[in-house]
Amino acid sequence: MRITALAGGVGGARFLRGLLTYLKQRHGAAPGSFAVTVIGNTADDITLHGLRVCPDLDTIMYTLGGGVHEGQGWGRADETFGVATELAAYGAQPDWFTLGDRDIATHLVRTQMLNLGYTLSQVTAALCDRWQPGVTLLPMSDDPVETHVVIDDETAEGGQKAIHFQEWWVRLHAKVPARRILAVGAEQAKPAPGVLDAIRDADVVLLPPSNPVVSIGTILGVPGVRDALRGTRAPVIGISPIVGGAPVRGMADACLTALGLETSAEAVAGLYADFLKGWLVDDSDAHLAGQSIAGAPIEVVARPLIMRDLAATADIAEGALDLARHLGE
Amino acid sequence: MRITALAGGVGGARFLRGLLTYLKQRHGAAPGSFAVTVIGNTADDITLHGLRVCPDLDTIMYTLGGGVHEGQGWGRADETFGVATELAAYGAQPDWFTLGDRDIATHLVRTQMLNLGYTLSQVTAALCDRWQPGVTLLPMSDDPVETHVVIDDETAEGGQKAIHFQEWWVRLHAKVPARRILAVGAEQAKPAPGVLDAIRDADVVLLPPSNPVVSIGTILGVPGVRDALRGTRAPVIGISPIVGGAPVRGMADACLTALGLETSAEAVAGLYADFLKGWLVDDSDAHLAGQSIAGAPIEVVARPLIMRDLAATADIAEGALDLARHLGE
Repeated sequence: MRITALAGGVGGARFLRGLLTYLKQRHGAAPGSFAVTVIGNTADDITLHGLRVCPDLDTIMYTLGGGVHEGQGWGRADETFGVATELAAYGAQPDWFTLGDRDIATHLVRTQMLNLGYTLSQVTAALCDRWQPGVTLLPMSDDPVETHVVIDDETAEGGQKAIHFQEWWVRLHAKVPARRILAVGAEQAKPAPGVLDAIRDADVVLLPPSNPVVSIGTILGVPGVRDALRGTRAPVIGISPIVGGAPVRGMADACLTALGLETSAEAVAGLYADFLKGWLVDDSDAHLAGQSIAGAPIEVVARPLIMRDLAATADIAEGALDLARHLGE
Repeated sequence: MRITALAGGVGGARFLRGLLTYLKQRHGAAPGSFAVTVIGNTADDITLHGLRVCPDLDTIMYTLGGGVHEGQGWGRADETFGVATELAAYGAQPDWFTLGDRDIATHLVRTQMLNLGYTLSQVTAALCDRWQPGVTLLPMSDDPVETHVVIDDETAEGGQKAIHFQEWWVRLHAKVPARRILAVGAEQAKPAPGVLDAIRDADVVLLPPSNPVVSIGTILGVPGVRDALRGTRAPVIGISPIVGGAPVRGMADACLTALGLETSAEAVAGLYADFLKGWLVDDSDAHLAGQSIAGAPIEVVARPLIMRDLAATADIAEGALDLARHLGE
């Protein structure tokens, strides 16, 4: 069984770990009997202190490779901050994004390889050689795409300015209203090698509970990806990141508001209506089950969606694959 | 009094600390009454994991700025190695040069500034803004000069190969005979801004007990530097790095052998004979006092030259300045 997932950071990574646990342990699938390809969001990548940082790819790699800080869901376990302390002593900017020492080694390897001319796909494969995440991790594109957020700024010309997504997310905690969210470079970006084939040739395509705007949304913005999702024979099954009108994690509500959408499982499904076949919502959104969403033939199934532990997460993955099987019949 | 020193790493840095101690504490010089300019060797600079590392400049900066690891004489005090441990886990090469976390912050700031187009002079000044070393620290050149060492290698064409100085020094501990020592890029290098003026306009020029081949020697190899030393009105006073036929520190003997020279205070003075006016040797080399060296009019004075502590080092600096005063009379 070939499973392809589009994923952002923490939510996607945790779902994928549940998926692998389900496949290997519950389902008892032999190692060669399934292959999971993950198309990772790269639009929140950022260059800090000259280092190319790919937060979502690293979160997936660290989580599935056993190196993640479990409590926070991103970054390295047992992290230290010797470099960051010294950068602060130099007054190096930006000072609102703290890189850990262990994490910096990843960025050094990546940056050096990129500067030598390797593509982000090649770099990601090289890093995964160490981490052995148990999936094929592909960046959505080898071309730079960076999410920028337009916010009000009285001092700027026109009363608005655009800042990097990370500045909005990390420094401003997404508390300043986003007037627009732009994926700079998306129109010129090409899908990374293997991305479109992974969608077209899959048996199941999954959308983990990642941010629908700045994670899944930016992957969908790479030319060709959306068409591949519309055209694939595989059922596309999504897991709602919104439970009972609030994001399970992160600040997806602030992103949906920027798009003029309400924060609801229904609104998110509406963003995927042209290719989505199945939609898992939480029991608290059970009223959506059996209803039509955005006039599209989407099968909505309600079940517990809180990934409170690995077992619960594996259950959710099982639910998604069950729905795919049902739709494929 | 304007004092200009040409310096390598640990030996130069420790001497300079003694010099500043002498000037400020013993001599009771008012802060504005003296100015020390240090022309630092950059030929053992190396790019590691994409980071530009300037070992000699940093050793001077850390030592005079109060951040050096006192025991080893280079690198940062209270250093940690989170990044290096992870780089090893990735199998990143080279694996024979270990960078500490605190030190890496310096290299990140430097590398980012260089990549933005700042010169090494500008970068060094920016780093010194934090460290306040009490001297004006100038790189010998803003152009890249890298010392390479030719060693025997049966597998190489011609039976020899050239390796970066750091590989010979750090990985091979200078135990493999150096057939030749080359300063790659030296002929095309220009002295950094201020270097020639600092020599020409000085009241005293000092050569601390640094390696005569790969530290002082490479500075002398920058076109214009040697001529400036020959032409300056200031007496040029050197402190022998060789005591009783052996280097006080480091592996200068291996470097002198590569030049076909013996390891002696006399042989080192011979390398400077065209501009040296005064030469401090250790009491164990007292037989040289009053003798002619290389047929040049060099005044040789014997005194204790072991920098066993700051007080002893300040004494040596005092001896050098006394000799300069005597020669200037």
